[in-house]
Amino acid sequence: MKSLRKELWFQVPSRRGFVNITSKVQEAVTESGVKEGLTLVNAMHITASVFINDDERGLHQDYEVWLEKLAPHEPVSQYRHNVGEDNADAHMKRQIMGREAVIAVTDGKLDLGPWEQVFYGEFDGRRKKRALIKIIGE
Amino acid sequence: MKSLRKELWFQVPSRRGFVNITSKVQEAVTESGVKEGLTLVNAMHITASVFINDDERGLHQDYEVWLEKLAPHEPVSQYRHNVGEDNADAHMKRQIMGREAVIAVTDGKLDLGPWEQVFYGEFDGRRKKRALIKIIGE
Amino acid sequence: MKSLRKELWFQVPSRRGFVNITSKVQEAVTESGVKEGLTLVNAMHITASVFINDDERGLHQDYEVWLEKLAPHEPVSQYRHNVGEDNADAHMKRQIMGREAVIAVTDGKLDLGPWEQVFYGEFDGRRKKRALIKIIGE
Repeated sequence: MKSLRKELWFQVPSRRGFVNITSKVQEAVTESGVKEGLTLVNAMHITASVFINDDERGLHQDYEVWLEKLAPHEPVSQYRHNVGEDNADAHMKRQIMGREAVIAVTDGKLDLGPWEQVFYGEFDGRRKKRALIKIIGE
Repeated sequence: MKSLRKELWFQVPSRRGFVNITSKVQEAVTESGVKEGLTLVNAMHITASVFINDDERGLHQDYEVWLEKLAPHEPVSQYRHNVGEDNADAHMKRQIMGREAVIAVTDGKLDLGPWEQVFYGEFDGRRKKRALIKIIGE
Repeated sequence: MKSLRKELWFQVPSRRGFVNITSKVQEAVTESGVKEGLTLVNAMHITASVFINDDERGLHQDYEVWLEKLAPHEPVSQYRHNVGEDNADAHMKRQIMGREAVIAVTDGKLDLGPWEQVFYGEFDGRRKKRALIKIIGE
């Protein structure tokens, strides 16, 4: 069995933002030499997500509005977690969007559907944060 | 290490619907010859889900009502993604229900709890779409 | 390839509650002898979750309030699933929090970010229920 571990680092300049990491994950798969296996990609922070969806600007704006409706940032005082912090909403948004994606590797490639793209979703940015890639297989 | 890749195809006749795929996933596990390992089952489309819950008709109706409340289809004009499309809500519903399920394989069988059933969740149907099964193990 | 299967049992005394299981999952990884691989941890019940977030009391209270807003328990009669049952809301809360976590194993340890903690999330407690740990790797 082969395995590879790799970290991706981000510094999203705003509080929230989505970064397409599909090609970086594919690079790691290629580097691993794994032809058949599984790739785990997860946020290492609990106010961020890794998720798979469309790379379409309008949709990302829709997600921003929708997540803000389901788990509003303001007023920050509505959350008990916000004692010396203001990111409780980010912990909720990340639950909806998910911590991780598990992706099949087939013939050395990420086995994605035609529109599937892998994103790092930031909900409390403006600082350095990481995602983890772990690949196992043969 | 053994591995198997298989696609399941669907054409759900309505916009939304849930299809129990538990026995098809078990068939793939049996075909793979894997006794101990992991099975990934994921929607290959970004307006569909694979999730695990109860095969109970009332609950599925509750999900329909609940998802429509959290991410309404109408008015379609409320979403920026809906330019020449009307499925933005489906991209949101799928985030709540999830893209994938990872299931243990133990002694050649899906290692599921007593009521766990695997579903393909369609949120933008009336066309051919796919789910992916990838099994690895020994 | 090595593998290990283990069940964790819970009896949460209230309807809802979160139990930190990080050290128990690490114990299973150590017991497995796996140095590089993947760990799946999933609820075996469809009214419970396994998720990763912060072990912070204020945040857990925020989750309680937030989930109750998104999928209220009362009135129980609003759900068609609640025929002789009253747990339909628990099936919804679990979809938001997720069924499972997949965690990398690196050098024999759970490869978690600095604040990542693994929780069993109960939404219909006061009875014995289980989570499953499945570890594969080498």
